[in-house]
Amino acid sequence: MGEFELIRRFFAAAPCAQAGEAVALGIGDDCALLNISAGEQLAVSTDTLVVGVHFPLSCDPFLLGQRALAVAVSDLAAMGATPLAFTLALTLDTAEPAWLHAFAAGLSQMAQTCRMALVGGDTTRGPLSLTLTVFGRVPVGQALTRSGARPGDLLCVGGVLGDAAGALPLVLGQREAPADQAEPLLRQYWSPLPQLELGELLRGKATAALDISDGLLADCGHVARASAVALQIEREQIPLSTALRLFAGEAATDCALAGGDDYVLAFTLPEEHLVAVQAQWPAMQVIGRVLDGQGVQLVDGNGQLITPPRTGYQHFGNTDD
Amino acid sequence: MGEFELIRRFFAAAPCAQAGEAVALGIGDDCALLNISAGEQLAVSTDTLVVGVHFPLSCDPFLLGQRALAVAVSDLAAMGATPLAFTLALTLDTAEPAWLHAFAAGLSQMAQTCRMALVGGDTTRGPLSLTLTVFGRVPVGQALTRSGARPGDLLCVGGVLGDAAGALPLVLGQREAPADQAEPLLRQYWSPLPQLELGELLRGKATAALDISDGLLADCGHVARASAVALQIEREQIPLSTALRLFAGEAATDCALAGGDDYVLAFTLPEEHLVAVQAQWPAMQVIGRVLDGQGVQLVDGNGQLITPPRTGYQHFGNTDD
Repeated sequence: MGEFELIRRFFAAAPCAQAGEAVALGIGDDCALLNISAGEQLAVSTDTLVVGVHFPLSCDPFLLGQRALAVAVSDLAAMGATPLAFTLALTLDTAEPAWLHAFAAGLSQMAQTCRMALVGGDTTRGPLSLTLTVFGRVPVGQALTRSGARPGDLLCVGGVLGDAAGALPLVLGQREAPADQAEPLLRQYWSPLPQLELGELLRGKATAALDISDGLLADCGHVARASAVALQIEREQIPLSTALRLFAGEAATDCALAGGDDYVLAFTLPEEHLVAVQAQWPAMQVIGRVLDGQGVQLVDGNGQLITPPRTGYQHFGNTDD
Repeated sequence: MGEFELIRRFFAAAPCAQAGEAVALGIGDDCALLNISAGEQLAVSTDTLVVGVHFPLSCDPFLLGQRALAVAVSDLAAMGATPLAFTLALTLDTAEPAWLHAFAAGLSQMAQTCRMALVGGDTTRGPLSLTLTVFGRVPVGQALTRSGARPGDLLCVGGVLGDAAGALPLVLGQREAPADQAEPLLRQYWSPLPQLELGELLRGKATAALDISDGLLADCGHVARASAVALQIEREQIPLSTALRLFAGEAATDCALAGGDDYVLAFTLPEEHLVAVQAQWPAMQVIGRVLDGQGVQLVDGNGQLITPPRTGYQHFGNTDD
């Protein structure tokens, strides 16, 4: 099956390919054409997922499609951008219709959730991997970068952390759990919901933001470096789900600190905006503060420094990337 | 080496990463931010190259970097778009500094040639492959699609065809050739120059355009289908280089018809614009005409139908994709 036929057959007719006003020309020509309004900038991000590194070969193609797009769109949320469109570069060993059908359905469902159109792509033969490039729009000057955090700002997160890292032994089939624990953890792993509304809400309020993909400590390190400040995290303030507490016990906080794959926003917020943001996004939690200095400090309830767990995200099945 | 460090070390400091006015925010945050002027649309295209499919593992990383970007940017030329920026998703088995250095240098050189900035990317561990997503800008309503060809238009190409297909036995080490044949053929294979100025020149003149990547016959088939017309190609009018004629002999025309990888524009042009385009792009050649009907016809000097060679591009090392 040729590249064009493959794309047309499984993706072009999918609901996610329906063009909105912003999409002047979709799939099928040399380029897609997007309209950007005056006063807006285009936000762009690219993510690759590789079989055996980011997901197992045996994984459900519907869930893979859903998750791949969610992970990519999370970068738009982190920027305060409104989703517009995406392209998919799909490398496949074999063009298996049942697999493609399910993958396209998962992708399509997440595209509808995020209100974005598939506008182009490329299919090639090779070991399974996906590269998604996502496009969003954001008013000029209002994008949430990593570099604006100022001493005195509150350090906040958009919801509970650690569920996806907690789910990893379940994904890998290394452990089992009762349904009331396994289901919410696996749902968070396979179908994270990009916090797009929160990102839009934080425009003009948050001084810095990113989405937590590498783990809270590592990602706070990125903000601290980009903003040339220190971030202090109070360990007891980190929000955790009941399912994770039950499943992971004392290791639950470490899942949040050093895990990854949360796709929850972390942001720094001047105190004057706290009430307004909390009113519209009750799941948010203040977990610390921005200080003069550099790096990330973890403290207990008494403000005493704690040695953090080993940081950095471990890709699925990999230990050194 | 982590993803961020890898990108920063080899690409962020490269000249191609220097931001122009259009790049509001480059590498290093969750998204890049691009400015699009009022009255312009964004053109977007994605291409993937996989080791063993599109290039040999042993290939020179400088040439690979150069070629990968040229191939992707050619889609912007085909749309009449002016290049703006690109993202790179790089999947690597090992992060070999010498390889990365040379690859980044090749990429960077082509980026400077095309005046575009690297604005983001992703690096992952896995079998070597590259996905480039390129961005350009084009005045609203002036993009060159595949669907506007009308009976009576001339069918034209932007220069000689078949050199890259002719070079394939040299790339694969299956044949040797004297330097005066090998050098120009290999240069066209490894360093095709996207016909950006031609694409811009054709805005408001050509009724359809694309870049020849699958071979002249297959690509003319795409235009014929999208425009619901027939395209007639006069075999004797297809421009061929001296190097290809010497190296491939009687097979030279078949390299042009059924080969691929030319990255030369094919376009349909109302006769009234011929003189103006020819004056500014003397390498162009009229090779046929748009007719009522469907499909692609190949004719000899007397207008007699000729059976075309087997069409469709064969990926490097592959016979069935």
